[in-house]
Amino acid sequence: MKYPNGQQYEQKEKKEKKTTRGILNAGNRGMSFEADINQSNEYYNDNNICLITKRPTPINIVKVDYSHGAIITHAYFEKQSTTDYNGVYQGRYIDFEAKNTKNKTAFPLANIPPQQIEHLKHVIYHGGIAFFLIQFESLAKVYLIDASYVIHFYEEGDRKSIPLSVIKEEGIEIEQGLNPRLNYIKAVEQKYFKK
Amino acid sequence: MKYPNGQQYEQKEKKEKKTTRGILNAGNRGMSFEADINQSNEYYNDNNICLITKRPTPINIVKVDYSHGAIITHAYFEKQSTTDYNGVYQGRYIDFEAKNTKNKTAFPLANIPPQQIEHLKHVIYHGGIAFFLIQFESLAKVYLIDASYVIHFYEEGDRKSIPLSVIKEEGIEIEQGLNPRLNYIKAVEQKYFKK
Repeated sequence: MKYPNGQQYEQKEKKEKKTTRGILNAGNRGMSFEADINQSNEYYNDNNICLITKRPTPINIVKVDYSHGAIITHAYFEKQSTTDYNGVYQGRYIDFEAKNTKNKTAFPLANIPPQQIEHLKHVIYHGGIAFFLIQFESLAKVYLIDASYVIHFYEEGDRKSIPLSVIKEEGIEIEQGLNPRLNYIKAVEQKYFKK
Repeated sequence: MKYPNGQQYEQKEKKEKKTTRGILNAGNRGMSFEADINQSNEYYNDNNICLITKRPTPINIVKVDYSHGAIITHAYFEKQSTTDYNGVYQGRYIDFEAKNTKNKTAFPLANIPPQQIEHLKHVIYHGGIAFFLIQFESLAKVYLIDASYVIHFYEEGDRKSIPLSVIKEEGIEIEQGLNPRLNYIKAVEQKYFKK
């Protein structure tokens, strides 16, 4: 995946302000959460473990210059109406969203758009495997939590976040390493395939 | 799916030259093949039949202007390294590519990039359902053909196309209608789910 998305661009923009970020991320070589997932997916694909790809960021194109090939000269980033990742593992459909938080005690639900919740409900309805990968940046921990828990908390209405304690209890901590950086398929295997 | 892709833009560009196109497409209200598939996917999603989405066209972003929000001012269309569509039906992973041809007797393999063949091989390896939807524009017919046949013809090397007769024999003709315009999931059901 060579194309950058809106978020990465924004991160690049703000990099100078976030002096602490580099220190906190030193453990994973300054790579972003997204880059870690992409690297893991590449490892999984190369080793025939599963096939998960990142959906390209949707772009709303306003103007294209055709005078020298096709050059986009005016466009906007669009919000993803689905999730960022999907693919196949042992014939089953896998669909997930990756979210990062700086919060140390809870995952705030504010940055999940309603259309993502709708999308994940449909995935579950059709028998797909749906989850969130949540990175607690300041704790350097990543958890897999089934989408149904997130949907439940999202729709209950009186809560604006999921406590870390719930995520620890209901979710699975992702093993971190060199290759793959985030061995999330091990958690998928444990949660959805072991009977 | 509101964002246009590279192909649509090119089609728009060339529209005036293709005077016959409008006549040939009168049968499907001048809509493109892609629009027909997207409409069908919307129908399937609305009616809880399956969840298939189009991957956004990947864009290679060169320059972003941050002076008023984030405006992309220089970017290129990139070739899709996967396929255009994927999703879930009855828990199974579905992955397909849609191709249109003006040829009346065969489907030319020249417009399938090698990375698409690689991608589909991986889908098959991991137990996913992989196929092509091929529209013979001048015949106003659409067929589903399993990706393994296409891969076979692609890799045999001495053939540069798949004869229509083979597609008719090994594939399934897609029922066309108002809603959904292309009832391809009926062919998926018939081919991959009936035992």
